Amino acid sequence: MYLGIHADRKATISEIAGFYGISRNHLVKVVHDLASHGYIHTHRGKGGGMFLARPACEINIGNVVRHAEPNFHMVECFNPQTRHCPIFAMCNLKGMLNDALGEFLAVLDRYTLEDLLKRPGGMGLPQFMEAGAGRATTQGR
Amino acid sequence: MYLGIHADRKATISEIAGFYGISRNHLVKVVHDLASHGYIHTHRGKGGGMFLARPACEINIGNVVRHAEPNFHMVECFNPQTRHCPIFAMCNLKGMLNDALGEFLAVLDRYTLEDLLKRPGGMGLPQFMEAGAGRATTQGR
Repeated sequence: MYLGIHADRKATISEIAGFYGISRNHLVKVVHDLASHGYIHTHRGKGGGMFLARPACEINIGNVVRHAEPNFHMVECFNPQTRHCPIFAMCNLKGMLNDALGEFLAVLDRYTLEDLLKRPGGMGLPQFMEAGAGRATTQGR
Repeated sequence: MYLGIHADRKATISEIAGFYGISRNHLVKVVHDLASHGYIHTHRGKGGGMFLARPACEINIGNVVRHAEPNFHMVECFNPQTRHCPIFAMCNLKGMLNDALGEFLAVLDRYTLEDLLKRPGGMGLPQFMEAGAGRATTQGR
Protein backbone atom coordinates (compact mmCIF):
# COMPACT_ATOMS: atom_id res chain seq x y z
CA MET A 1 0.00 0.00 0.00
CA TYR A 2 2.79 2.41 0.92
CA LEU A 3 4.64 1.73 -2.32
CA GLY A 4 1.43 2.25 -4.25
CA ILE A 5 0.85 5.61 -2.60
CA HIS A 6 4.45 6.67 -3.22
CA ALA A 7 4.74 5.22 -6.70
CA ASP A 8 6.91 8.09 -7.93
CA ARG A 9 9.97 7.10 -5.91
CA LYS A 10 11.81 4.39 -4.03
CA ALA A 11 11.04 3.77 -0.34
CA THR A 12 13.12 2.10 2.33
CA ILE A 13 12.16 -0.45 4.96
CA SER A 14 13.04 2.00 7.73
CA GLU A 15 10.81 4.65 6.21
CA ILE A 16 7.82 2.32 5.89
CA ALA A 17 8.33 0.77 9.34
CA GLY A 18 8.53 4.25 10.82
CA PHE A 19 5.47 5.54 9.00
CA TYR A 20 3.19 2.72 10.05
CA GLY A 21 4.84 2.06 13.41
CA ILE A 22 5.38 -1.60 12.60
CA SER A 23 8.21 -4.00 13.34
CA ARG A 24 11.20 -3.58 11.06
CA ASN A 25 12.01 -7.30 11.30
CA HIS A 26 8.48 -8.22 10.32
CA LEU A 27 8.61 -5.85 7.39
CA VAL A 28 11.89 -7.37 6.18
CA LYS A 29 10.09 -10.71 5.90
CA VAL A 30 7.10 -9.20 4.11
CA VAL A 31 9.36 -7.39 1.65
CA HIS A 32 11.35 -10.55 0.99
CA ASP A 33 8.14 -12.43 0.33
CA LEU A 34 6.67 -9.78 -1.96
CA ALA A 35 9.96 -9.50 -3.87
CA SER A 36 10.23 -13.27 -4.30
CA HIS A 37 6.75 -13.29 -5.84
CA GLY A 38 7.61 -10.49 -8.22
CA TYR A 39 5.45 -7.77 -6.70
CA ILE A 40 8.29 -5.41 -5.81
CA HIS A 41 11.85 -4.71 -6.90
CA THR A 42 14.53 -3.84 -4.37
CA HIS A 43 17.78 -1.96 -4.94
CA ARG A 44 20.45 -2.33 -2.30
CA GLY A 45 22.99 0.13 -1.01
CA LYS A 46 23.14 3.88 -0.75
CA GLY A 47 20.27 5.49 -2.60
CA GLY A 48 18.59 2.10 -2.71
CA GLY A 49 15.08 1.17 -1.77
CA MET A 50 12.11 -0.60 -3.20
CA PHE A 51 9.27 0.08 -5.57
CA LEU A 52 6.36 -1.77 -7.12
CA ALA A 53 7.42 -4.04 -9.95
CA ARG A 54 4.16 -3.26 -11.79
CA PRO A 55 1.52 -0.53 -11.72
CA ALA A 56 -0.93 -0.87 -8.82
CA CYS A 57 -3.74 -1.60 -11.28
CA GLU A 58 -1.92 -4.75 -12.37
CA ILE A 59 -1.49 -6.20 -8.87
CA ASN A 60 -4.45 -8.40 -8.13
CA ILE A 61 -5.49 -8.67 -4.47
CA GLY A 62 -6.70 -12.25 -4.85
CA ASN A 63 -3.30 -13.30 -6.10
CA VAL A 64 -1.47 -11.42 -3.35
CA VAL A 65 -3.61 -13.20 -0.74
CA ARG A 66 -2.97 -16.56 -2.43
CA HIS A 67 0.76 -15.89 -2.26
CA ALA A 68 0.59 -14.73 1.36
CA GLU A 69 -1.30 -17.77 2.63
CA PRO A 70 0.45 -21.13 2.75
CA ASN A 71 -2.82 -22.81 1.78
CA PHE A 72 -6.61 -22.57 2.03
CA HIS A 73 -7.21 -25.78 3.93
CA MET A 74 -10.17 -24.57 5.97
CA VAL A 75 -11.04 -28.10 6.91
CA GLU A 76 -8.67 -31.02 7.24
CA CYS A 77 -10.03 -32.89 4.24
CA PHE A 78 -9.12 -30.10 1.81
CA ASN A 79 -5.54 -31.32 2.11
CA PRO A 80 -5.08 -34.81 0.66
CA GLN A 81 -1.96 -35.27 2.83
CA THR A 82 -3.75 -34.71 6.13
CA ARG A 83 -7.12 -36.17 5.25
CA HIS A 84 -8.03 -38.39 8.19
CA CYS A 85 -11.69 -37.48 8.75
CA PRO A 86 -13.59 -40.77 8.99
CA ILE A 87 -16.69 -39.37 7.32
CA PHE A 88 -14.87 -37.85 4.33
CA ALA A 89 -16.47 -40.13 1.75
CA MET A 90 -19.99 -39.59 3.07
CA CYS A 91 -19.79 -35.89 3.85
CA ASN A 92 -20.96 -33.39 1.28
CA LEU A 93 -20.33 -30.32 3.40
CA LYS A 94 -16.82 -30.11 1.93
CA GLY A 95 -18.29 -29.28 -1.47
CA MET A 96 -20.34 -26.42 -0.03
CA LEU A 97 -17.38 -25.07 1.93
CA ASN A 98 -15.29 -25.30 -1.19
CA ASP A 99 -17.90 -23.37 -3.20
CA ALA A 100 -17.96 -20.75 -0.47
CA LEU A 101 -14.17 -20.48 -0.43
CA GLY A 102 -14.22 -20.08 -4.19
CA GLU A 103 -16.58 -17.11 -3.83
CA PHE A 104 -14.38 -15.66 -1.08
CA LEU A 105 -11.39 -15.66 -3.43
CA ALA A 106 -13.51 -14.51 -6.37
CA VAL A 107 -14.37 -11.32 -4.47
CA LEU A 108 -10.68 -10.60 -3.88
CA ASP A 109 -9.93 -11.41 -7.52
CA ARG A 110 -12.13 -8.50 -8.54
CA TYR A 111 -9.83 -5.98 -6.83
CA THR A 112 -6.39 -4.63 -7.56
CA LEU A 113 -3.99 -2.66 -5.39
CA GLU A 114 -5.21 0.45 -7.20
CA ASP A 115 -8.78 -0.25 -6.03
CA LEU A 116 -7.48 -0.76 -2.53
CA LEU A 117 -5.73 2.62 -2.55
CA LYS A 118 -8.82 4.33 -3.95
CA ARG A 119 -11.36 2.93 -1.51
CA PRO A 120 -12.50 5.28 1.23
CA GLY A 121 -10.95 4.61 4.63
CA GLY A 122 -12.69 3.59 7.81
CA MET A 123 -15.14 1.20 6.23
CA GLY A 124 -17.46 -0.18 8.86
CA LEU A 125 -17.77 -3.89 9.30
CA PRO A 126 -21.24 -5.14 8.38
CA GLN A 127 -23.47 -6.49 11.04
CA PHE A 128 -22.66 -10.15 10.45
CA MET A 129 -19.15 -9.51 11.70
CA GLU A 130 -20.27 -8.29 15.09
CA ALA A 131 -20.29 -10.86 17.86
CA GLY A 132 -23.56 -12.69 18.04
CA ALA A 133 -25.10 -11.09 14.97
CA GLY A 134 -25.33 -14.41 13.16
CA ARG A 135 -26.70 -16.11 16.25
CA ALA A 136 -29.51 -13.62 16.57
CA THR A 137 -31.02 -14.45 13.20
CA THR A 138 -33.73 -17.03 12.86
CA GLN A 139 -32.29 -20.42 12.25
CA GLY A 140 -34.61 -21.37 9.41
CA ARG A 141 -33.85 -20.76 5.79
CA MET B 1 -26.52 -35.45 8.31
CA TYR B 2 -27.24 -38.83 9.90
CA LEU B 3 -30.41 -37.54 11.53
CA GLY B 4 -31.50 -36.07 8.21
CA ILE B 5 -31.00 -39.39 6.45
CA HIS B 6 -32.88 -41.25 9.21
CA ALA B 7 -35.58 -38.66 9.70
CA ASP B 8 -38.24 -41.32 10.34
CA ARG B 9 -36.87 -42.39 13.71
CA LYS B 10 -34.72 -41.51 16.70
CA ALA B 11 -31.00 -42.26 16.65
CA THR B 12 -28.53 -42.69 19.51
CA ILE B 13 -25.05 -41.31 19.97
CA SER B 14 -23.62 -44.85 20.03
CA GLU B 15 -25.32 -45.66 16.75
CA ILE B 16 -24.02 -42.55 15.00
CA ALA B 17 -20.51 -42.86 16.45
CA GLY B 18 -20.43 -46.48 15.34
CA PHE B 19 -21.72 -45.77 11.85
CA TYR B 20 -19.20 -43.04 11.05
CA GLY B 21 -16.37 -44.46 13.16
CA ILE B 22 -16.01 -41.23 15.10
CA SER B 23 -15.23 -40.49 18.74
CA ARG B 24 -18.23 -40.89 21.03
CA ASN B 25 -16.93 -38.14 23.33
CA HIS B 26 -16.58 -35.75 20.43
CA LEU B 27 -20.08 -36.57 19.25
CA VAL B 28 -21.49 -35.91 22.73
CA LYS B 29 -20.14 -32.37 22.48
CA VAL B 30 -21.50 -31.87 18.97
CA VAL B 31 -24.93 -33.14 20.01
CA HIS B 32 -24.96 -30.87 23.05
CA ASP B 33 -24.07 -27.92 20.87
CA LEU B 34 -26.67 -28.70 18.20
CA ALA B 35 -29.35 -29.25 20.86
CA SER B 36 -28.51 -25.99 22.62
CA HIS B 37 -29.00 -24.14 19.34
CA GLY B 38 -32.32 -25.82 18.72
CA TYR B 39 -31.34 -27.97 15.77
CA ILE B 40 -32.06 -31.30 17.44
CA HIS B 41 -34.21 -32.67 20.25
CA THR B 42 -32.93 -35.37 22.57
CA HIS B 43 -34.94 -37.84 24.66
CA ARG B 44 -33.12 -39.51 27.51
CA GLY B 45 -33.46 -43.01 28.89
CA LYS B 46 -34.55 -46.34 27.48
CA GLY B 47 -36.05 -45.91 24.02
CA GLY B 48 -34.52 -42.45 23.92
CA GLY B 49 -32.46 -40.86 21.23
CA MET B 50 -32.35 -37.76 19.16
CA PHE B 51 -33.99 -36.37 16.07
CA LEU B 52 -34.00 -33.18 14.05
CA ALA B 53 -36.06 -30.44 15.67
CA ARG B 54 -37.14 -29.23 12.23
CA PRO B 55 -37.33 -30.64 8.71
CA ALA B 56 -33.97 -30.74 6.93
CA CYS B 57 -35.19 -28.14 4.45
CA GLU B 58 -35.57 -25.66 7.30
CA ILE B 59 -32.04 -26.04 8.65
CA ASN B 60 -29.84 -23.47 6.97
CA ILE B 61 -26.18 -24.43 6.51
CA GLY B 62 -24.99 -20.85 6.87
CA ASN B 63 -26.65 -20.61 10.25
CA VAL B 64 -25.27 -23.95 11.40
CA VAL B 65 -21.75 -22.82 10.48
CA ARG B 66 -22.29 -19.49 12.28
CA HIS B 67 -23.33 -21.42 15.39
CA ALA B 68 -20.42 -23.84 15.12
CA GLU B 69 -17.75 -21.17 14.81
CA PRO B 70 -16.96 -18.98 17.81
CA ASN B 71 -16.40 -16.04 15.45
CA PHE B 72 -15.25 -15.07 11.96
CA HIS B 73 -12.28 -12.94 12.95
CA MET B 74 -10.12 -13.80 9.99
CA VAL B 75 -7.83 -10.93 10.75
CA GLU B 76 -7.15 -9.42 14.16
CA CYS B 77 -8.86 -6.12 13.39
CA PHE B 78 -12.26 -7.78 12.80
CA ASN B 79 -12.51 -8.09 16.58
CA PRO B 80 -12.74 -4.69 18.29
CA GLN B 81 -11.45 -6.29 21.52
CA THR B 82 -8.19 -7.52 20.00
CA ARG B 83 -7.61 -4.77 17.49
CA HIS B 84 -3.96 -3.82 17.89
CA CYS B 85 -2.79 -3.57 14.29
CA PRO B 86 -0.96 -0.25 13.98
CA ILE B 87 -2.11 0.34 10.41
CA PHE B 88 -5.82 -0.31 11.10
CA ALA B 89 -6.96 3.23 10.35
CA MET B 90 -5.04 3.43 7.09
CA CYS B 91 -5.63 -0.08 5.81
CA ASN B 92 -8.51 -0.72 3.45
CA LEU B 93 -7.81 -4.40 2.97
CA LYS B 94 -10.14 -5.17 5.88
CA GLY B 95 -13.10 -3.95 3.85
CA MET B 96 -12.23 -6.26 0.96
CA LEU B 97 -11.71 -9.22 3.28
CA ASN B 98 -15.00 -8.45 4.92
CA ASP B 99 -16.78 -8.35 1.55
CA ALA B 100 -15.19 -11.68 0.69
CA LEU B 101 -16.24 -13.21 4.01
CA GLY B 102 -19.76 -11.97 3.39
CA GLU B 103 -19.83 -13.81 0.07
CA PHE B 104 -18.43 -16.93 1.75
CA LEU B 105 -21.33 -16.98 4.20
CA ALA B 106 -23.81 -15.99 1.49
CA VAL B 107 -22.97 -19.18 -0.41
CA LEU B 108 -23.64 -21.29 2.69
CA ASP B 109 -26.85 -19.33 3.33
CA ARG B 110 -28.17 -20.61 0.01
CA TYR B 111 -28.10 -24.22 1.23
CA THR B 112 -30.11 -26.24 3.71
CA LEU B 113 -29.45 -29.60 5.27
CA GLU B 114 -31.82 -31.06 2.68
CA ASP B 115 -29.59 -29.75 -0.13
CA LEU B 116 -26.61 -31.21 1.62
CA LEU B 117 -28.23 -34.65 1.77
CA LYS B 118 -29.24 -34.44 -1.87
CA ARG B 119 -25.92 -33.40 -3.34
CA PRO B 120 -23.93 -36.12 -5.06
CA GLY B 121 -21.04 -37.47 -3.01
CA GLY B 122 -17.35 -37.37 -3.81
CA MET B 123 -17.30 -33.86 -5.25
CA GLY B 124 -13.84 -33.05 -6.51
CA LEU B 125 -12.08 -30.01 -5.17
CA PRO B 126 -11.53 -27.36 -7.85
CA GLN B 127 -8.05 -26.58 -8.99
CA PHE B 128 -7.56 -23.53 -6.79
CA MET B 129 -7.67 -25.79 -3.73
CA GLU B 130 -4.74 -27.90 -4.84
CA ALA B 131 -1.37 -26.95 -3.39
CA GLY B 132 0.40 -24.40 -5.52
CA ALA B 133 -2.42 -23.88 -7.99
CA GLY B 134 -2.81 -20.25 -7.02
CA ARG B 135 0.91 -19.70 -7.17
CA ALA B 136 1.14 -21.03 -10.69
CA THR B 137 -1.21 -18.44 -12.16
CA THR B 138 0.09 -15.23 -13.61
CA GLN B 139 0.27 -12.55 -11.02
CA GLY B 140 -1.31 -9.79 -13.07
CA ARG B 141 -4.99 -9.00 -13.04
